[in-house]
Amino acid sequence: MTGRTPAPRKATRRDVARLAGVSDAVVSYTLNGTAPVAAATAERVLAAVEQLGYRPNQAARALRSGSADTLAFLVPSSSDPVFTNPFFGEYASTLEAAARDRGYALYTTATSFRPDEVLARFREFAARQIDGVLVLAGSTPLDSAALDRVGLPWIALNVATGEHGVASLGTDLRAGAVAMTTHLLEHGHGSVGFVGQDDPSEPRYVGWLQACTAAGVPAGPFIAAEVTRPGGRDAGHRIADERSADPTPAPRAFFVASDRTAVGVLRAFHERGVRVPEDIAIASFDGSSEAEYAWPGLTTFRQPIDEMAQSAVARLLATDRDHTHELFPGELVRRRSCGCPDAG
Amino acid sequence: MTGRTPAPRKATRRDVARLAGVSDAVVSYTLNGTAPVAAATAERVLAAVEQLGYRPNQAARALRSGSADTLAFLVPSSSDPVFTNPFFGEYASTLEAAARDRGYALYTTATSFRPDEVLARFREFAARQIDGVLVLAGSTPLDSAALDRVGLPWIALNVATGEHGVASLGTDLRAGAVAMTTHLLEHGHGSVGFVGQDDPSEPRYVGWLQACTAAGVPAGPFIAAEVTRPGGRDAGHRIADERSADPTPAPRAFFVASDRTAVGVLRAFHERGVRVPEDIAIASFDGSSEAEYAWPGLTTFRQPIDEMAQSAVARLLATDRDHTHELFPGELVRRRSCGCPDAG
Repeated sequence: MTGRTPAPRKATRRDVARLAGVSDAVVSYTLNGTAPVAAATAERVLAAVEQLGYRPNQAARALRSGSADTLAFLVPSSSDPVFTNPFFGEYASTLEAAARDRGYALYTTATSFRPDEVLARFREFAARQIDGVLVLAGSTPLDSAALDRVGLPWIALNVATGEHGVASLGTDLRAGAVAMTTHLLEHGHGSVGFVGQDDPSEPRYVGWLQACTAAGVPAGPFIAAEVTRPGGRDAGHRIADERSADPTPAPRAFFVASDRTAVGVLRAFHERGVRVPEDIAIASFDGSSEAEYAWPGLTTFRQPIDEMAQSAVARLLATDRDHTHELFPGELVRRRSCGCPDAG
Repeated sequence: MTGRTPAPRKATRRDVARLAGVSDAVVSYTLNGTAPVAAATAERVLAAVEQLGYRPNQAARALRSGSADTLAFLVPSSSDPVFTNPFFGEYASTLEAAARDRGYALYTTATSFRPDEVLARFREFAARQIDGVLVLAGSTPLDSAALDRVGLPWIALNVATGEHGVASLGTDLRAGAVAMTTHLLEHGHGSVGFVGQDDPSEPRYVGWLQACTAAGVPAGPFIAAEVTRPGGRDAGHRIADERSADPTPAPRAFFVASDRTAVGVLRAFHERGVRVPEDIAIASFDGSSEAEYAWPGLTTFRQPIDEMAQSAVARLLATDRDHTHELFPGELVRRRSCGCPDAG
């Protein structure tokens, strides 16, 4: 399946939406007639479709032909399945849309990520005429030489540090941790703690420590937590209990390694009557809808899932494939949990 | 692919976990050696494996052979993708585990649910040697005769009302709505409103109305809302604004059609200073982790995704396939949002 024809960047539904100043959904409603659209709006959409040369039915045509082009998305089947994490759910939906925009269907499927099972899944994909594989490996080591021999193009997602000869991409977690920790310090906190994995080589741990050192403040405390909602809740209880044992507790600040963990921390603080941000300020990581709808709204580092999804699919389908690691910057989203004067 | 050998109910990892009194993850750790397990715990797990005749490597063996058995899970590619809904994310993970327990991999893939596209996807699945299809159709009508002619077994999930000759299942939404509305009435509210889809034939709407009528109280108000977080937030703002215009607002209660909508309603109430449950009591629907980690915790109707996933996969793989509609009861989960004295 290597050496397929190049897939130039075609206009996407999103491009049309941006040019017409409407949502993606309104583009679909206009073109598919699935919901009523005001005449003036529909005209703007159709003008944008013409101007950009958007071909809305490309995916549908490929599917109707019965020989649809298809990519596989391999995700972990862990005890904490990927789709129960809203961040990855949103990432998967974005990848699906990016593939569809290029006329590809996406099969999402789970694996234990044991090396023999990953290899078996790659062979299975090849046998089923799948055109390429997106691998949500995270920190799991992959036997890239063995996978390459299967002959399918593949790219690893959610990768922090590139490996020679492997196509991969991921958010710059370290830089994100620096940005969030620095932001909390700028709110006037004399120190910033970290709630996350107990792994000093993990980029968010590294970035947190770097930011504290650069600011000349003591780093701490570090609160080890599983990166799940219950893990965050447990960490939050420990922080709240330590605080209530202190006769004159000072305001504190914590950088929390993921939105999901932070939702658990928030929950524990609500249970213990700890006010956010007045008693303890929080900044988290990912930029999922969970952070937006938490109370108070979570200041977070938004991973650029749109840009990463577009790049992952484009690189997978390029004739002239590169095998480099691509690092994406993210974006600080200010809400109320850190002390910023946001509506949230 | 019809007429395959029957798939009797085999012991699952979960059965082993229950018998050994440990989590699913600890069973995996013990059998795969992926994390340390205390000796006494490992012995309990291995005893349970033996007693139940659990065959942990069945899925792995099938995959290693390169000829894995595979099911497809067809979900909507709407403007509000299914995986951004935590309830469906949890359902998908549960289906994947149910398939894996029977030695099947699961490919999850999205479609517009236009009849021609669904048919094309079924043909594509047949061409790729997929063994059966789980269809998350919801209320979208399907051309079941055309799909049957493709020759793949299939079953429709999340279906409220069965159709003759179509294998389907779903939660009894109407009964759930009756349970939640009645529960709010039992808290002493003189009336209960409903936040949900503007569709009087939708089973949750029907159930809400039935419960009010049965209790002899006026039903209302009805607040139309998109079943999304922003839709809920918008509805919450409307409810809060109407309340603040009332010089002597009375406590109220609302049944909200989904956890996701309720999270948006809660957010709006926090923004407007409306206290839950003191000013307005809330009960919602689905039983997702979002309801558990909301503040206050959401009293909700838990859809039995575990039982539904097991049944869906078992029925799909049975030699002697039935084409009936199976309705599942759910369960009221009490938390603080309705006024119950829960820790949440």
